[in-house]
Amino acid sequence: MSVDTAAIETVNQDFYTAIEDADLDKMTEVWAEDTADEQVSCVHPGWTLLAGRSEVLRSWALIMANTTYIQFVLTDVSTTVLGDVAVLTCVENILTAGEEGESSFAAGKVVASNVYVRTAQGWRLWMHHGSPVLQSDDDEEEEDELER
Amino acid sequence: MSVDTAAIETVNQDFYTAIEDADLDKMTEVWAEDTADEQVSCVHPGWTLLAGRSEVLRSWALIMANTTYIQFVLTDVSTTVLGDVAVLTCVENILTAGEEGESSFAAGKVVASNVYVRTAQGWRLWMHHGSPVLQSDDDEEEEDELER
Repeated sequence: MSVDTAAIETVNQDFYTAIEDADLDKMTEVWAEDTADEQVSCVHPGWTLLAGRSEVLRSWALIMANTTYIQFVLTDVSTTVLGDVAVLTCVENILTAGEEGESSFAAGKVVASNVYVRTAQGWRLWMHHGSPVLQSDDDEEEEDELER
Repeated sequence: MSVDTAAIETVNQDFYTAIEDADLDKMTEVWAEDTADEQVSCVHPGWTLLAGRSEVLRSWALIMANTTYIQFVLTDVSTTVLGDVAVLTCVENILTAGEEGESSFAAGKVVASNVYVRTAQGWRLWMHHGSPVLQSDDDEEEEDELER
């Protein structure tokens, strides 16, 4: 693993730890700054696109305020470094708790694409796109259809 | 609009035209080549992640074979050029027709993040991530929750 890849995957882990710990300060640190013309962007599963640092961080504050317990186990982490930009894809295996007082847990699977940019402060998150996996991993059905 | 942005948005338009026209040759041209270590990736709405040119193009062949009619109207197109990489986000307003013989149409909204890389042949698609918008654009409810 290259030095860059290791550094990017560390920041990526910080990103998910920030959600787990409801740590908005850490989350603020993970995201890149908007530039004069261009804005960071974030898509939560099932949401439309949010653009700009303030809108994105506001959404995380909202999610943190409304989450009792959340845990991420990342699988299929794959990082491509393209100069000063990196594309990291992963599967978020999520365990969440229900409302306070309830003892229910729910499990879910989200596929995420995260784009990081190299800055003077290190790699920072430029884009996060998470989407719900509604279809099973088993693609035998697709293969059958294709062969018809 | 910069020369790069114009070129990227042209390729992005080619990408959606290829889907509309069920033109797998054009689709093949739009996607970047895998490198020795790294692979292109694609997430269709509700699907899990597909990695590598052959798996990705195979999924498009499958979608094209199973689509009678599809039309994209893109809105909120926003392009950020970061050196030799560009992140383009847009909303795909989709109109599809039902099975052959039926006269039903369905409308849907997908939010997409597309990452393009600069190659000797021009800008090529490195990653496409499309996800269903399940929540309305109206975020007044969220604001109310946040203010509580």
